[in-house]
Amino acid sequence: MTTLRPFSRRAHGFGQQPISELMRMALAQTELISLAAGFVDQATLPVEETQQALAAVFADATRGRAALQYGTNAGYLPLREAVLARLIAADGEYAGTRPHVDQVILTAGSNQMLHLVGEALLDPGDIVLCAAPTYFVFIGLLAGLSARAVGVAIDGDGMIPEALQETLERLKRSGERERVKAIYTTSYFENPSTVTLSRERRRQVVEIAKRHSADGHLYVIDDSAYRELRYSGPDLPSMRAFDETGETVIVAETFSKSFSPGIRVGWGVLPPELVGPLSGLKTSIDFGSPHLNQQLMSAVFEKGLFEPHLQVLRESYQAKMNAMLAALDDFMADVPGVRWQRPTGGLYVWLELPEGLDAGPGGRLIEHALAEGVLYVPGEYCYPGEGERARKDRIRLSFGVQSAENIRRGIEALARAVRQLL
Amino acid sequence: MTTLRPFSRRAHGFGQQPISELMRMALAQTELISLAAGFVDQATLPVEETQQALAAVFADATRGRAALQYGTNAGYLPLREAVLARLIAADGEYAGTRPHVDQVILTAGSNQMLHLVGEALLDPGDIVLCAAPTYFVFIGLLAGLSARAVGVAIDGDGMIPEALQETLERLKRSGERERVKAIYTTSYFENPSTVTLSRERRRQVVEIAKRHSADGHLYVIDDSAYRELRYSGPDLPSMRAFDETGETVIVAETFSKSFSPGIRVGWGVLPPELVGPLSGLKTSIDFGSPHLNQQLMSAVFEKGLFEPHLQVLRESYQAKMNAMLAALDDFMADVPGVRWQRPTGGLYVWLELPEGLDAGPGGRLIEHALAEGVLYVPGEYCYPGEGERARKDRIRLSFGVQSAENIRRGIEALARAVRQLL
Repeated sequence: MTTLRPFSRRAHGFGQQPISELMRMALAQTELISLAAGFVDQATLPVEETQQALAAVFADATRGRAALQYGTNAGYLPLREAVLARLIAADGEYAGTRPHVDQVILTAGSNQMLHLVGEALLDPGDIVLCAAPTYFVFIGLLAGLSARAVGVAIDGDGMIPEALQETLERLKRSGERERVKAIYTTSYFENPSTVTLSRERRRQVVEIAKRHSADGHLYVIDDSAYRELRYSGPDLPSMRAFDETGETVIVAETFSKSFSPGIRVGWGVLPPELVGPLSGLKTSIDFGSPHLNQQLMSAVFEKGLFEPHLQVLRESYQAKMNAMLAALDDFMADVPGVRWQRPTGGLYVWLELPEGLDAGPGGRLIEHALAEGVLYVPGEYCYPGEGERARKDRIRLSFGVQSAENIRRGIEALARAVRQLL
Repeated sequence: MTTLRPFSRRAHGFGQQPISELMRMALAQTELISLAAGFVDQATLPVEETQQALAAVFADATRGRAALQYGTNAGYLPLREAVLARLIAADGEYAGTRPHVDQVILTAGSNQMLHLVGEALLDPGDIVLCAAPTYFVFIGLLAGLSARAVGVAIDGDGMIPEALQETLERLKRSGERERVKAIYTTSYFENPSTVTLSRERRRQVVEIAKRHSADGHLYVIDDSAYRELRYSGPDLPSMRAFDETGETVIVAETFSKSFSPGIRVGWGVLPPELVGPLSGLKTSIDFGSPHLNQQLMSAVFEKGLFEPHLQVLRESYQAKMNAMLAALDDFMADVPGVRWQRPTGGLYVWLELPEGLDAGPGGRLIEHALAEGVLYVPGEYCYPGEGERARKDRIRLSFGVQSAENIRRGIEALARAVRQLL
């Protein structure tokens, strides 16, 4: 019997993320050096630290049993206190009130927090303004909610306030301003552009959101997933530090990059009025993320295991980043029209290819690159569907997974592929 | 600045689950014996077993690192194979094809699987037919999706096929049949009614779903959360065993009750055509549930730790169930109009109170019960909003959390409260 399968509209919206297509390509070829996935370095995963933290959890049978019992919907209080204290210490001065622990909710990675925020704020047709380019999984998430991603231009200091302002004015003129619910930015070492939103711009973007909130509340989603992965220069405060009333900024963070993605603990710091709606959604989805993992991460902090490991990570990633930059210098510097920024953190290099070169999934570069044994993320995946135009001549390179040696071989292979098309 | 907060329609739908109100009541009174929450027994949580399984994961540094890395969206393959092999062995004969491991997706508890299925199948206004009474969290989940729960009458053998058939015919006559997307049942020791859907009824419900699928595909959601908690009598096959084409039945299971809710691993076995839509949804929500937890549960099976622990659990819960039944016999048997089934598994006793006695959250019994120091789940929470009428004179009692001694004291207190109202 074959009958119509009437899946929900939403099921049709949430298609496979583009990364699935890349993984299919990667699997089809062994010996491929993938500079695509934003996975983390395998060698520095904290096996010792995790064992020590688990030993601390299970050393006391009462605590061990508690870790194996249901937790709370918002998550283990001591861990919520720890992440909040860390945020406040790192941010330093706040323009207004500090966030309170009641505003902290633990999730399965920051991705679940982004999903919950999307669910809580967006009806079909609603709009989120995003840096162009931006985190492509977030674009997919918005598509799944039948929401619209509108791109705002960036430069070396991140999202351009004037461009943001103009986009809001344009949407106001077209009668769509009330559909805009949030501004999204991965404000530290932006994925994929690697730029960091400057201190002054943080203040300006928050200020613009507040000014325009007179026409309907605008949130700022400060996705700080890479904040801890800084290799040089001073840290910057989160955008929450510039939010005088605490009503505007949502901070989303995670231990997936800074400790372990397999433990999968992320969190959000929310404006107070968002806590109820998000908690309601999370209760209905999973009653709270796994308690064991929260107890484990809490023990990582109690035992002082986080900072030393982070230092190891930073050194390891910095070395890999330097290997990628050196390889680019050696193999790409003399290719006309190829440019890249020198990041100070994160896991990526964003490569500008000669104007008009099609690096997209249907283009010639990816074919040649695969033939040469290297895979990248096509930059066009990273552009919102509207606003700032998508560039096919950009690619994202990740130095997170591969060894320095493979990174060098991968860049050399990529350079060969690019030269073949010139 | 105060501006309108335009939360999504969905955020308004997913309100706090009723259990939140109960927890508020419980917290307001210390010394309360809660027979409300469906939490698990603290004393039998598998501290030793978890430590052994974690030791196995981390004994090999390569495996340890793998556990701390991202997993796959569908989940760790050896665990998916293990749960599927266990299902197939327990089910015995299949009417048609056996499910394949590609159809198994691991989730954060079975609740996330129910949520994903709801998301994949239901648009606002769509209908799920549920046993009346049924799992109240699922009713809340449907409300959050703006879907409708329509109740179908049950008896001692579970959902009554004739009542199901009549409900479908009635909805067909009213032009609403095409909105019905699924039939939901917690088929083992139904939460809260404690009845188990008989073998013949399993076949009949699947057959009815298939017959009516000519008017639009109908799924059967077989929520088997309590299957492993059987204390007497033979096991019954899942409804999937009666699904000749494999196109109809979704099985949702979890280790939350049978091992540990803090580890929070559940899974679903899906009809093939649902795998794509659910995977797409899950990718956008969390890229897959925590890999560490899946490796841990896989090691529990490898080391043969699951079955012996399950035996311990069954004995412990059976003793507590017997304590509750004995207390009911001692304190309630002579209260006119009070009746209960003797369950053969699960965590609950479903109590029928004298006709018309209001045991609901606004009624007099809960006040008296709280004054006597005992809390229960009002049965009216467990009835779908439509179809079979809600009964205010039913309550759900859980023997999962409290000690045998407390269970006895709780039932004695409840009996005093009931007598006060007669």
